[in-house]
Amino acid sequence: MPELRKDPVVGRWVIISTERGRRPSDFVIESVRPLGANCVFCPGNESRTPHEILAGRPPDSAADGPGWSFRVVPNKFPALRIEGELEPAGEGLYDRMNGVGAHEVVIETPDHAATLATLPVDAVADVLLAYRDRVVDLKKDPRFEYILVFKNHGAAAGASLEHPHSQLIATPIIPIMVLEELKGAAAYYEMKERCVWCDIVRQERRSRRRVITEAHGFMAVAPFAPRFPFEAWVLPTTHRSAFEETSMDALRGLAEVLGDVLRRIDRVLHHPPFNFMLHTAPLREGPLDDFHWHLEIIPKLTNVAGYEWGSGFFINPVPPEDAAAALREGDH
Amino acid sequence: MPELRKDPVVGRWVIISTERGRRPSDFVIESVRPLGANCVFCPGNESRTPHEILAGRPPDSAADGPGWSFRVVPNKFPALRIEGELEPAGEGLYDRMNGVGAHEVVIETPDHAATLATLPVDAVADVLLAYRDRVVDLKKDPRFEYILVFKNHGAAAGASLEHPHSQLIATPIIPIMVLEELKGAAAYYEMKERCVWCDIVRQERRSRRRVITEAHGFMAVAPFAPRFPFEAWVLPTTHRSAFEETSMDALRGLAEVLGDVLRRIDRVLHHPPFNFMLHTAPLREGPLDDFHWHLEIIPKLTNVAGYEWGSGFFINPVPPEDAAAALREGDH
Repeated sequence: MPELRKDPVVGRWVIISTERGRRPSDFVIESVRPLGANCVFCPGNESRTPHEILAGRPPDSAADGPGWSFRVVPNKFPALRIEGELEPAGEGLYDRMNGVGAHEVVIETPDHAATLATLPVDAVADVLLAYRDRVVDLKKDPRFEYILVFKNHGAAAGASLEHPHSQLIATPIIPIMVLEELKGAAAYYEMKERCVWCDIVRQERRSRRRVITEAHGFMAVAPFAPRFPFEAWVLPTTHRSAFEETSMDALRGLAEVLGDVLRRIDRVLHHPPFNFMLHTAPLREGPLDDFHWHLEIIPKLTNVAGYEWGSGFFINPVPPEDAAAALREGDH
Repeated sequence: MPELRKDPVVGRWVIISTERGRRPSDFVIESVRPLGANCVFCPGNESRTPHEILAGRPPDSAADGPGWSFRVVPNKFPALRIEGELEPAGEGLYDRMNGVGAHEVVIETPDHAATLATLPVDAVADVLLAYRDRVVDLKKDPRFEYILVFKNHGAAAGASLEHPHSQLIATPIIPIMVLEELKGAAAYYEMKERCVWCDIVRQERRSRRRVITEAHGFMAVAPFAPRFPFEAWVLPTTHRSAFEETSMDALRGLAEVLGDVLRRIDRVLHHPPFNFMLHTAPLREGPLDDFHWHLEIIPKLTNVAGYEWGSGFFINPVPPEDAAAALREGDH
């Protein structure tokens, strides 16, 4: 059983994922990434994944068979396990609990060589709809407090498979980064009686120096204090705290803007590896006046090194104004 | 001038390091790492670094000439600039200040092919002494609140030069990770009236499951909730809050234990890239009862991916008990 453990000083939880356990020697050799015919996510290989939870497929096609446009399956090597109770326990001054959670994979397209930047907008909207549907479904499980949707694209960004896919992890704990955002946003709201991200949208719209694009009710912006070169945030321009309450129409708008931003990143940075992470309100909150969901995109261009790991201070060689200008011009 | 900028939501500062500014195209090609005769840190090339601040050299040898055993020089491409005032300013809802700070490089040995794992203990002790001396000296500058000593070993760990070196960055701000440790440690002390790291040393000594080695007044331990596989902490077994108050004798003990741990890591993990970071009390604090300096070593074995960046939750496939057992046995 994987375990959740808490650092006794800073309160940071980690997942000790024994299911994925590796011996020291396993770290030496690059993992083999199956391609083409051997890819477990390609059509024809449906039986090599766990049974699908959700799929886009014609009404007459059978589950776990071909004909799908996207599939959601449990992760075959989950960081957390869906069965069991938390059973929190102490060990002297330490705290641990069972690693209960859900870890699912969204196979975004049957086309091994496609990406969210090259797929038609309808297909990207279907992927976003799959995210929404899985969040809505997993929210029914009272053990879960948070669901993080994320994507690793490229080996350097942590993707172990090449076939286009994203993931979600549901946890019994609200991740520390989300807690920090909630706390900061609440303090801002307390002072100003306005949502900090709504204020960011307004201020960026006035200066435009860090705006990459704005369309269909979404703004893509290079944040004022980015951790990484060419970091980009996509957020609804109207206040919304919960991603899973996004309408079909709005998801289509997000698909347009997300595809556009990823194409700009591909053009300007020559198809870099990247991650994106969806920050939404915790599952058990009603609509929040002070939290605003958003998607963070981080191209993987530099190695995070000792200074960042030791300080939490990030050194970023590219001012966001320059990054935004390059991405604004990168639409052709 | 580099700039310090603060994220308006979570309060995380970043360094926008325009001095190291790169154009988008600069990210495409791997940077060239000079080797051997072309290495700027090798003996004979002293004139290619900024003037040395400190060096281990015979009394009759000239500064910036050959004959040294270690050198400390300003970083030629500093993340922060030593001249100037902070001049904090707002930009709408955002906060910024000038990127004032010190960024120095400790060239650990004239031998391009050596490492802290292969150097004799006296040479390692000299490097630690150089850290101490530079902290003591930079502490006199009232603009600085914190100095982080760190090492990037190997390109994957962020080292842009192969020649053995470590770095230090002095900042006008206490880094957020240190603040979080201070806060967590103060809360623990408030409750227990004991230092949390002293309690960790006592508890680990009783169970021994996560102890890698203990000698010369230092313990090397795999932490209970490690972010990374084979993460190791080295800490004095007697309470000390400020690294710069470590005696010469104790630095020699640390050199023994650090060299030993790095050799174990090299043997067990086949010479992996790694980072280490020294966490010590902020410069303007007197001796603290609730903070305990320590060195964090993180082998670079896995890629940090979207889940970690989005959640702050780390997924670690290796239980620290297994890592410690492998490193305990890795002494031959």
